[in-house]
Amino acid sequence: MTRFECDYTQGAHPRIMQRLMETNMEQTSGYGTDEYCERARDLIRSACEAPEAAVHFLVGGTQTNTTVIAALLRPHQGVLSAETGHIAGHETGAIEATGHKVLTLPSGDGKITAEQVRRAYDDHWNDATHEHIAQPGMVYISQSTENGTVYSLAELEALSAVCRELSLPLFVDGARLGYALAAEGSDVTLADLARLTDVFYIGGTKVGALMGEAVVILNEALKRDFRYLIKQRGGMLAKGRLLGIQFETLFEDGLYMEVSRSAVSLAIKLRDALSGMGFGFLHESPTNQQFPILPNDLLKRISEKHTFSTWAKIDEERTAVRFCTSWGTTEAEIDGLIADLAAAK
Amino acid sequence: MTRFECDYTQGAHPRIMQRLMETNMEQTSGYGTDEYCERARDLIRSACEAPEAAVHFLVGGTQTNTTVIAALLRPHQGVLSAETGHIAGHETGAIEATGHKVLTLPSGDGKITAEQVRRAYDDHWNDATHEHIAQPGMVYISQSTENGTVYSLAELEALSAVCRELSLPLFVDGARLGYALAAEGSDVTLADLARLTDVFYIGGTKVGALMGEAVVILNEALKRDFRYLIKQRGGMLAKGRLLGIQFETLFEDGLYMEVSRSAVSLAIKLRDALSGMGFGFLHESPTNQQFPILPNDLLKRISEKHTFSTWAKIDEERTAVRFCTSWGTTEAEIDGLIADLAAAK
Amino acid sequence: MTRFECDYTQGAHPRIMQRLMETNMEQTSGYGTDEYCERARDLIRSACEAPEAAVHFLVGGTQTNTTVIAALLRPHQGVLSAETGHIAGHETGAIEATGHKVLTLPSGDGKITAEQVRRAYDDHWNDATHEHIAQPGMVYISQSTENGTVYSLAELEALSAVCRELSLPLFVDGARLGYALAAEGSDVTLADLARLTDVFYIGGTKVGALMGEAVVILNEALKRDFRYLIKQRGGMLAKGRLLGIQFETLFEDGLYMEVSRSAVSLAIKLRDALSGMGFGFLHESPTNQQFPILPNDLLKRISEKHTFSTWAKIDEERTAVRFCTSWGTTEAEIDGLIADLAAAK
Amino acid sequence: MTRFECDYTQGAHPRIMQRLMETNMEQTSGYGTDEYCERARDLIRSACEAPEAAVHFLVGGTQTNTTVIAALLRPHQGVLSAETGHIAGHETGAIEATGHKVLTLPSGDGKITAEQVRRAYDDHWNDATHEHIAQPGMVYISQSTENGTVYSLAELEALSAVCRELSLPLFVDGARLGYALAAEGSDVTLADLARLTDVFYIGGTKVGALMGEAVVILNEALKRDFRYLIKQRGGMLAKGRLLGIQFETLFEDGLYMEVSRSAVSLAIKLRDALSGMGFGFLHESPTNQQFPILPNDLLKRISEKHTFSTWAKIDEERTAVRFCTSWGTTEAEIDGLIADLAAAK
Repeated sequence: MTRFECDYTQGAHPRIMQRLMETNMEQTSGYGTDEYCERARDLIRSACEAPEAAVHFLVGGTQTNTTVIAALLRPHQGVLSAETGHIAGHETGAIEATGHKVLTLPSGDGKITAEQVRRAYDDHWNDATHEHIAQPGMVYISQSTENGTVYSLAELEALSAVCRELSLPLFVDGARLGYALAAEGSDVTLADLARLTDVFYIGGTKVGALMGEAVVILNEALKRDFRYLIKQRGGMLAKGRLLGIQFETLFEDGLYMEVSRSAVSLAIKLRDALSGMGFGFLHESPTNQQFPILPNDLLKRISEKHTFSTWAKIDEERTAVRFCTSWGTTEAEIDGLIADLAAAK
Repeated sequence: MTRFECDYTQGAHPRIMQRLMETNMEQTSGYGTDEYCERARDLIRSACEAPEAAVHFLVGGTQTNTTVIAALLRPHQGVLSAETGHIAGHETGAIEATGHKVLTLPSGDGKITAEQVRRAYDDHWNDATHEHIAQPGMVYISQSTENGTVYSLAELEALSAVCRELSLPLFVDGARLGYALAAEGSDVTLADLARLTDVFYIGGTKVGALMGEAVVILNEALKRDFRYLIKQRGGMLAKGRLLGIQFETLFEDGLYMEVSRSAVSLAIKLRDALSGMGFGFLHESPTNQQFPILPNDLLKRISEKHTFSTWAKIDEERTAVRFCTSWGTTEAEIDGLIADLAAAK
Repeated sequence: MTRFECDYTQGAHPRIMQRLMETNMEQTSGYGTDEYCERARDLIRSACEAPEAAVHFLVGGTQTNTTVIAALLRPHQGVLSAETGHIAGHETGAIEATGHKVLTLPSGDGKITAEQVRRAYDDHWNDATHEHIAQPGMVYISQSTENGTVYSLAELEALSAVCRELSLPLFVDGARLGYALAAEGSDVTLADLARLTDVFYIGGTKVGALMGEAVVILNEALKRDFRYLIKQRGGMLAKGRLLGIQFETLFEDGLYMEVSRSAVSLAIKLRDALSGMGFGFLHESPTNQQFPILPNDLLKRISEKHTFSTWAKIDEERTAVRFCTSWGTTEAEIDGLIADLAAAK
Repeated sequence: MTRFECDYTQGAHPRIMQRLMETNMEQTSGYGTDEYCERARDLIRSACEAPEAAVHFLVGGTQTNTTVIAALLRPHQGVLSAETGHIAGHETGAIEATGHKVLTLPSGDGKITAEQVRRAYDDHWNDATHEHIAQPGMVYISQSTENGTVYSLAELEALSAVCRELSLPLFVDGARLGYALAAEGSDVTLADLARLTDVFYIGGTKVGALMGEAVVILNEALKRDFRYLIKQRGGMLAKGRLLGIQFETLFEDGLYMEVSRSAVSLAIKLRDALSGMGFGFLHESPTNQQFPILPNDLLKRISEKHTFSTWAKIDEERTAVRFCTSWGTTEAEIDGLIADLAAAK
């Protein structure tokens, strides 16, 4: 069985495993105060061209979203998000559990626009009863999105400009940031993110690491006491160096982009093959997630050898599904999948 | 200026004020442990034909909604509500501030159906990733709704049946319960609510009292320790007897229904007059809130003598507004409003 | 039965009731936006010599403490308080319910010192693991305290100075502020509180009003959006004018201090009589709460005609109890109590 | 430099690393639904002689404590804990951040007694104002404690009996459970814990794993929906198998007890050597943490070659410090430390 249902089916990139083995018996201080973490922070600051950024390592995405959002908002404020945003629908109400409402904006492709943010803000403040309504206090987006789409540099710049004008911190969930940076046609860099946002994170769990997300904080107010917040929300790993070693490995020789490009290129190969077979897609994705609309009987046949996620029922005969590639996907696996799809058609 | 923008523009019914004056210098114990509260509880249990009900008095609606909902849910659960529900949009995220998500259902008229509840429940449990989604844990409805509409007995029975089948406690926000019970064509009684729900409240603030909401708890698990929860959420009035005296007055001689019927009857008079003038309505309301769609220039003219709430822009020339009657509205005031509307037309 | 167990056994001062009656049928806007509230705010700003202060009216003390404290703290911060502070032990964990720890300091008399605050702050920051400990984020004191004691001007100035030096906002719970201002030997004024604190409140519930607390905010950051926070925590009274009318009455002719002085003077009369009978006290109180240590058999006898609160068991034969006077206590009532105590001795 | 300041200075036991390497490129489903987790659950149920127990894997201790406690309590309830308990002082207010008060009990040795629990319960319910006080809702203990001490079987049985009598769920924080089970003189087994508690966890982070805590739930009510709660609190690892593989390795051949015994035996060797040199101890610990009281100048000298934690200032010349052994400590390291202590004396 070859697994394509998500991008976290395997352990870590072999170079990471090797480094973890080599360093295993070394003794270091805990909680991210060790030298591996420090070097990884420097490498990330450098990759982001942001020498003043604060960099912290957390274990997972929900934890990171919760910690950052609860740190930025006052109690009466909510976070603007696409209705498809991970925080809106796939974190078991974790944001609400910290006391804050997720203020959803409609979205077909997983993205929101600067114009939507401005309108939500204006609608709030123009409402005579606005004190009775949770106040928009920040903006959350994902890059790439839950639909596999990516924000262009122009879109990000427009969002950033409106957020700064309206004093709404902008937070980018980068659980799949590598795949966004490596996306077909992408024109956004880490330095752009550091320049345009208040805080974002570089996902490790889905991009080559065993686990771990690197939060990059540009906003001065948010930098203050952030380690307290990580600890309080349960995100401070005792053996913090495990995260430092992994991010050091990912960023010292370009491994992060290397594995990201590999995953995207294999996803595009799959996409083109499916298009060639005449299938359409639920979302147009230039990244590692592909959402083809496939006949149910075909799905049944290939499910004997491959896993995928069911995404949406299209009609009685067709279903949109998700195939993910990852840092670990091989060309042989994709070729096998394509061959089986062609045969099952 | 005559005020119709809401149903809390005046103090309390004169009989309540008289009782507060008469009892003012009496000395009683605090926090609702006095005899006035006890008598009021008995009168309410009797009116509800629910001798085993627990009855508690809180000060206001947001507080009551927050206290009840946070008491019923486990941390990972949310509350199903119409998207127009008061808790969804007009309580500054108070429910989220207790850690729980409001799970909204679409609604044109302010109501939700048994079928919607079942579907939301099924959709949740049929989702393969349901553990990543806030779980529907109870159902919130308003009677009357924020749109002035009321649930019929058949609708309530259907909701109650599905809630019991699915083990979802049913909570009715009765901030305007008197006006619902007195609504044109209403076939629901207090006894029906006690029979069909887990908990509901009888609004005092908008129906004759200075302030106060009487929570009627039928659900055994919710009865336990409820006074702790009132205290924790800031709803336990030190001079609790103020609420007891008011509800005693409202329920000892039928005053609650008397003032409710008066308000509804004047609202219907206004509605019929507006219909007679050829105006339509945003919502068809048989209660004390009326939502006519009126020309902007007419609104401008009558705003010199009457207040109302702006509800929704219909087009460039017309706006839907809200006129509320209340226990304190007089026939002369409604006649004056009707005359001014006719003159301004 | 004459009640001395607390200072909220009766309704409101007759002049307040009269004003509520006179204004009862007037129509005003809701939620504290009416002219009565506006005038009351001006009177309070004037009494505090604080023309720039923001003044808000909430219904009760727990609600006010919760709203203010949750508004001031970031998620990882706690509030320093005497271990006897109301927030520490008598609000059913309301502060914790907003996510914040109450950081208690030992206190024999209900007060804390500037030195204790400095030490708590230093201890926190000197701890190598301070990021693993809730951070002191503000200071809460009560004036008068739960033990009936009062801070002198010198004590308040010292606390204020250390709080400003350490950037810890200082919040004064004034549920019994009138009785503190009128305390025997008091040298603190409302203007001092406005000068020395970030926020405090002027208690109405226990000092002549039916209910209501007037929050006076000096801290600029806290002023922002405070009405949202009141609404979210359930403290925004729909008929807000009820609070405005009461505070206007209390502050337009000096009624607040008049009733406070009356209560304190009767409490001192009781204290002196008890001392004269040879009884000691649990706390030395110059305010309206007195805590004599009395023989159990005497308590049994007087409990047939008077109520009081049991405070602490001293030994097998004696108990410390609390007698409270209030704005409503009469000289005849105190004389009756003293006579009964003397007779029962 | 040899590190003794805590028990998480190194990676994982080599057999764990080897298993992680061997399985690294396997593809499995996520979030703990894989077969490694299933086998690890079976092994743990078997070790606990608790075939009906629910077993879940979380990443770290603070997260685990928060998730379990917030799942067990209603909003007005707090958790009883020794004042030295990890949740009371070393989790940055994480429990309070979920809305609950930590109700501390005095403790010299890190333990609390059945009698203390009963008294706290009785004190609460006997207080006339108990509805104004956070209600004791469960009991938290650590085994071994933060002071290195362990509960005997008799002590645990007494605690369990009183908890069951009073309907207070009993939760054991087992971050260092291995070292407690292996403690000198220990008479408690995993099966005892499963028999006597509602929920406990088996610490991996400090006992041989890279990270991970295995929660064992006996209480039926707590079993329900527990995975939602893990997800909401950020504890659901995407690559859940990483935890499963580690606990499988720890429990399939007795490795967990083997490494625990090794750490304890080296700690006892250190303790005996220090005693032999005439030094006393802050706590009498039969486990892997030792708290000797040592002269400051000796500490200065050995700090050039060894790390330790500063625990408490004893007087101007002596300080209590903590030395920890762990699964990774070697006999040579302890011998080196002892030699250096002897030389520096």
